[in-house]
Amino acid sequence: MNSSNIQVGVVGAAGYAGAELLRLLCEHPNAQITHITSRANAGKPVGDVFPSLLNVLDLAFSEPNVDALKSCDLVFFSTPHGVAMNMVQALLDADVKIVDLSADFRLTDADEWAQWYGMEHATPHLLEEAVYGLPELYREDIKKACLVANPGCYPTATLLGMAPLIQSGLIDVSRIISDAKSGVSGAGRGANVATLYGEVGESFKAYGASGHRHAPEIAEIMGRLAGESVDLTFVPHLLPMVRGIEATLYAEALKEITPEQLQQQYEDAYEDEPFVTVLPYASHPATDGVRGTNACRIAVHKPNSGARIIVLSVIDNLIKGAAGQAVQNMNLMMGVPEIAGLNSVAVWP
Amino acid sequence: MNSSNIQVGVVGAAGYAGAELLRLLCEHPNAQITHITSRANAGKPVGDVFPSLLNVLDLAFSEPNVDALKSCDLVFFSTPHGVAMNMVQALLDADVKIVDLSADFRLTDADEWAQWYGMEHATPHLLEEAVYGLPELYREDIKKACLVANPGCYPTATLLGMAPLIQSGLIDVSRIISDAKSGVSGAGRGANVATLYGEVGESFKAYGASGHRHAPEIAEIMGRLAGESVDLTFVPHLLPMVRGIEATLYAEALKEITPEQLQQQYEDAYEDEPFVTVLPYASHPATDGVRGTNACRIAVHKPNSGARIIVLSVIDNLIKGAAGQAVQNMNLMMGVPEIAGLNSVAVWP
Amino acid sequence: MNSSNIQVGVVGAAGYAGAELLRLLCEHPNAQITHITSRANAGKPVGDVFPSLLNVLDLAFSEPNVDALKSCDLVFFSTPHGVAMNMVQALLDADVKIVDLSADFRLTDADEWAQWYGMEHATPHLLEEAVYGLPELYREDIKKACLVANPGCYPTATLLGMAPLIQSGLIDVSRIISDAKSGVSGAGRGANVATLYGEVGESFKAYGASGHRHAPEIAEIMGRLAGESVDLTFVPHLLPMVRGIEATLYAEALKEITPEQLQQQYEDAYEDEPFVTVLPYASHPATDGVRGTNACRIAVHKPNSGARIIVLSVIDNLIKGAAGQAVQNMNLMMGVPEIAGLNSVAVWP
Amino acid sequence: MNSSNIQVGVVGAAGYAGAELLRLLCEHPNAQITHITSRANAGKPVGDVFPSLLNVLDLAFSEPNVDALKSCDLVFFSTPHGVAMNMVQALLDADVKIVDLSADFRLTDADEWAQWYGMEHATPHLLEEAVYGLPELYREDIKKACLVANPGCYPTATLLGMAPLIQSGLIDVSRIISDAKSGVSGAGRGANVATLYGEVGESFKAYGASGHRHAPEIAEIMGRLAGESVDLTFVPHLLPMVRGIEATLYAEALKEITPEQLQQQYEDAYEDEPFVTVLPYASHPATDGVRGTNACRIAVHKPNSGARIIVLSVIDNLIKGAAGQAVQNMNLMMGVPEIAGLNSVAVWP
Repeated sequence: MNSSNIQVGVVGAAGYAGAELLRLLCEHPNAQITHITSRANAGKPVGDVFPSLLNVLDLAFSEPNVDALKSCDLVFFSTPHGVAMNMVQALLDADVKIVDLSADFRLTDADEWAQWYGMEHATPHLLEEAVYGLPELYREDIKKACLVANPGCYPTATLLGMAPLIQSGLIDVSRIISDAKSGVSGAGRGANVATLYGEVGESFKAYGASGHRHAPEIAEIMGRLAGESVDLTFVPHLLPMVRGIEATLYAEALKEITPEQLQQQYEDAYEDEPFVTVLPYASHPATDGVRGTNACRIAVHKPNSGARIIVLSVIDNLIKGAAGQAVQNMNLMMGVPEIAGLNSVAVWP
Repeated sequence: MNSSNIQVGVVGAAGYAGAELLRLLCEHPNAQITHITSRANAGKPVGDVFPSLLNVLDLAFSEPNVDALKSCDLVFFSTPHGVAMNMVQALLDADVKIVDLSADFRLTDADEWAQWYGMEHATPHLLEEAVYGLPELYREDIKKACLVANPGCYPTATLLGMAPLIQSGLIDVSRIISDAKSGVSGAGRGANVATLYGEVGESFKAYGASGHRHAPEIAEIMGRLAGESVDLTFVPHLLPMVRGIEATLYAEALKEITPEQLQQQYEDAYEDEPFVTVLPYASHPATDGVRGTNACRIAVHKPNSGARIIVLSVIDNLIKGAAGQAVQNMNLMMGVPEIAGLNSVAVWP
Repeated sequence: MNSSNIQVGVVGAAGYAGAELLRLLCEHPNAQITHITSRANAGKPVGDVFPSLLNVLDLAFSEPNVDALKSCDLVFFSTPHGVAMNMVQALLDADVKIVDLSADFRLTDADEWAQWYGMEHATPHLLEEAVYGLPELYREDIKKACLVANPGCYPTATLLGMAPLIQSGLIDVSRIISDAKSGVSGAGRGANVATLYGEVGESFKAYGASGHRHAPEIAEIMGRLAGESVDLTFVPHLLPMVRGIEATLYAEALKEITPEQLQQQYEDAYEDEPFVTVLPYASHPATDGVRGTNACRIAVHKPNSGARIIVLSVIDNLIKGAAGQAVQNMNLMMGVPEIAGLNSVAVWP
Repeated sequence: MNSSNIQVGVVGAAGYAGAELLRLLCEHPNAQITHITSRANAGKPVGDVFPSLLNVLDLAFSEPNVDALKSCDLVFFSTPHGVAMNMVQALLDADVKIVDLSADFRLTDADEWAQWYGMEHATPHLLEEAVYGLPELYREDIKKACLVANPGCYPTATLLGMAPLIQSGLIDVSRIISDAKSGVSGAGRGANVATLYGEVGESFKAYGASGHRHAPEIAEIMGRLAGESVDLTFVPHLLPMVRGIEATLYAEALKEITPEQLQQQYEDAYEDEPFVTVLPYASHPATDGVRGTNACRIAVHKPNSGARIIVLSVIDNLIKGAAGQAVQNMNLMMGVPEIAGLNSVAVWP
């Protein structure tokens, strides 16, 4: 295989993350989209479904078909949960690599998965094989992986924000809070009263405060980093805007640390990372500074003499929280430069 | 004085809270607006400044003038901080009651006030006389007060949400977090790049995470309720919408409490309150359910077996967080029904 | 019947116009809501469907049932087209008055109706009996009517803006243009990809430029006013906001008229109207000046020495464009003051 | 000069169009930004003023200085009107080419310019030298130009939409209407109450209906195309969104034309244009389909048997309406491929 010409397929390409994935792949120097599937839109040219891709991508959606997808080097799944787990094994058997943007392979425990997603896992043996696709934490594993579970959007913002504190053993892992806010595109493109403009515009609310599927995903990875189980409080909120996630993270230091030391710890942790920027101490990153990019921006605060640490973390939920991270994973898996196709500048305002 | 005809003046009436105050007073059965002042708009009819009040209120703005205001029964200040403190004493001397929507009388310690507001307090002797105008906590004091400090918008949402937990001694007051989000109108109507549509639209961020003026105000009242000093972490955020505040509050129980007991505690605390509604356990109040009203809606969550308690509290920042609460205070001070002029239904969607 | 206690039913009360109708009726001094129906929500308390009405209206939705509705004095239909036409006759026979917010009785020609709405009209004999419920044009007829067809939102804004020009014979009725823009709530509360926040937010477009159902409705009424058939070009557009319609109307004067004469003509036409305000010459009314009210604001422009006249007309699409106008019609039909329940002030900002 | 390394300066780079220009130039394969000026921000790193460009462009703003700019191959002016006209001659004398995004050279008549912009033109002799930078109309002139007047955003959308009709002599040029709607970014980044989020959010209105500076600019170019003076009615409107312009254009055919012929005329007119797409007959282009791109999308409608023609035209006001068109002009002037740096895909949703 010539790495400069990766043949890719996208299953379930008709949602918001799918649209973003197609855009990024169209602009990618090493990728060629060969198959895009959508049951609901089979037969339609991509420009009919996504006017933004009119004249950009000259393909039509097809019915998902495992045999057809076997000609790809790598297949992305951008499907509801419960779809990828039934198709992945056959593709792996055909030496096709997989990046799954759905939740099917994000937890390692099949029982816990079943509890949160309301169905039995079809291929529990793959749960251990799957690598959690957060390159800043698992880059070397991803390079060798055939099956990557692309993280959720909230987990990406939360984990990148908290990892340095957890890895250093600095904080009380029984008292971690992630108060996270997401643009509406995170809820997908399904017809749904709850995400109508009339419901979401000029309004704001929390949801899932008593339990959200991203909480066990975050807690599992945090536990791996901590080497012990963590107690995470996670409250997501719905923002009246299309794109962007901000996570305001709260932790308690177990030992004395100065603001300068805290800042230094973050700068050290991410100094070689192409997509994570640590802003100057006590900054306030805005979601529009990363809109349209694969960047994560982080700032730390230690507001008074006490033990409280605040971390602010922002991403574009559809890019670093979904399609961009998926392309970053593809790049690592296929041996092309990690930033290939991901260096566009934020569109602002 | 006939309580059915309260003569009111509004100083600094040309901002967003001023507009809302005028609207509520126009619809109030017992109030008559006699003076509205605005240096910048002196001479202009109110309908030129607020098209929403065209044909509703037939008055013009005038220069602020203490002598003219002495004919009022009650004067509202809706001014930047530092204005009311120079005018209030003369009005009190003339038996005019005051509701100050600015921050001038919200803290009791003049040094702390000076530290946060960057100037010496002009009338520190009034700080003790002023009553903190949160009726749900200080109703009887307000009834007898001549000078009421109308609470800030964030403090209102936060204090109503946390008061039952603090008063009951249930939680660790060294670990209280308020993660609060506000619509842009809270920043006022001044010409300011930071609140342009182009800056705020389709974006979200925290601000003041290392220190915001509302934090000492909240902490002081919480300390009074707790009977000891509290350690509050307060992080405000700016929402891409005009109106509404949501505060997501985090606390840790010091003793066992079931979800049912927690819920019952809130329902008991607010059962006679006309403007506070406790939603069913584990609800998620949205800001648009209280838009245009003086209501506060609260829901409690206890997401797992641990000690963490989550409280969600929403208000309309311009009403229960400013002008509506000011009218509620006026009603109490003037002996008219507390809900007079405040019973409109939320405009939705 | 005691006019101070009108028993009303609302069929199809679970949409946006239904919510607004319930809010207005709750605040109405002469109305009592006795029945609210919604097939999809039968059995649910109204506060579960509309959190804004929690603690305001203590009723549950029921299945629509003509017999039960016969106890009402007046029934509103806020249903999709094709529903009211099958239920109205039975209610009229029981001396129940009807205000239909749907399109079922807005056209007088059954064939034309069938062509635009894609089904045969079930009760074509009622088309002539129905009065078009635009009180500024047909007040006396409405007072005597048993069946009122409440106008569409676009027709209301357009007709109020153009009526004075057409009635006076001043303009070329073969060259009328209405370029109209509506907030998303006009599209209703149905689950629909096209009105998701992700589709509508930060975007704008025309729709129906080659033919929209409101065009024949507008043209029919214009034709009645003109005494001849008119040629109307009508292009609706979708705004990224919840509420409000603005119509920019273009006409050509057939004879010389000065700006002063033009302005005077409008002021004369609407001088006694409680809900229509003619702004000073060359003003630009904004939708937020009428949000939450039954008002229509109009301004006229004559930009140069030529024949072109521009009229700007704004309403709240859910109030003067739907529920408020329906209540205004009810007031006229039931003999209570026309403005009863409709005098609230715009909620701004 | 090596065309693959164009040294560019940007005067007045701290506004919204400036930000977009810097973004596009950073992504341009042939351009190198050497000077960026802003009086208000002199000395500040670009990332402090535009967080979106943090880590992207490592330059600081400087005071505008003609001598320093003489080292550039081309200088963009993204300044308020009245600035460029005082600096351009000195730069032209030094063989620096100019693309002026302001209005200083858009009209050819100095008296008319003075009337609309409220000051005398400083260099009226340059008005004739300046080429109007709409490449689809004046490509060959632009290639040879030293001074290009970059068109306004409304004129771009309107002229691209109407040019084929005017050039063909098909329509009555005494009856052209452009009903145009713009996102708020078109009003610039100045601190201004009228463009605060609280004023613009959830509202819509027309402005400048009796006269707007873009009207004479459009009329002048239309007149050149028509070979006779045109009578244009132009009404701009302010949208509650950041980016995007939609122009709904109305014309009257002077002779019979079928929808198919009309469509063909547009397809022929733009078939070789890289940035103009004619959508299928009777489409409705949305602004979000071109957001972040230099594209213009156009659709035509002929709604009934009459003479009325409707054209819908959308652009991103900051790109094809400002910075992107400026780069397109630079490409033509400097002999690099016209699409260089301008082929990014729309960011959607």
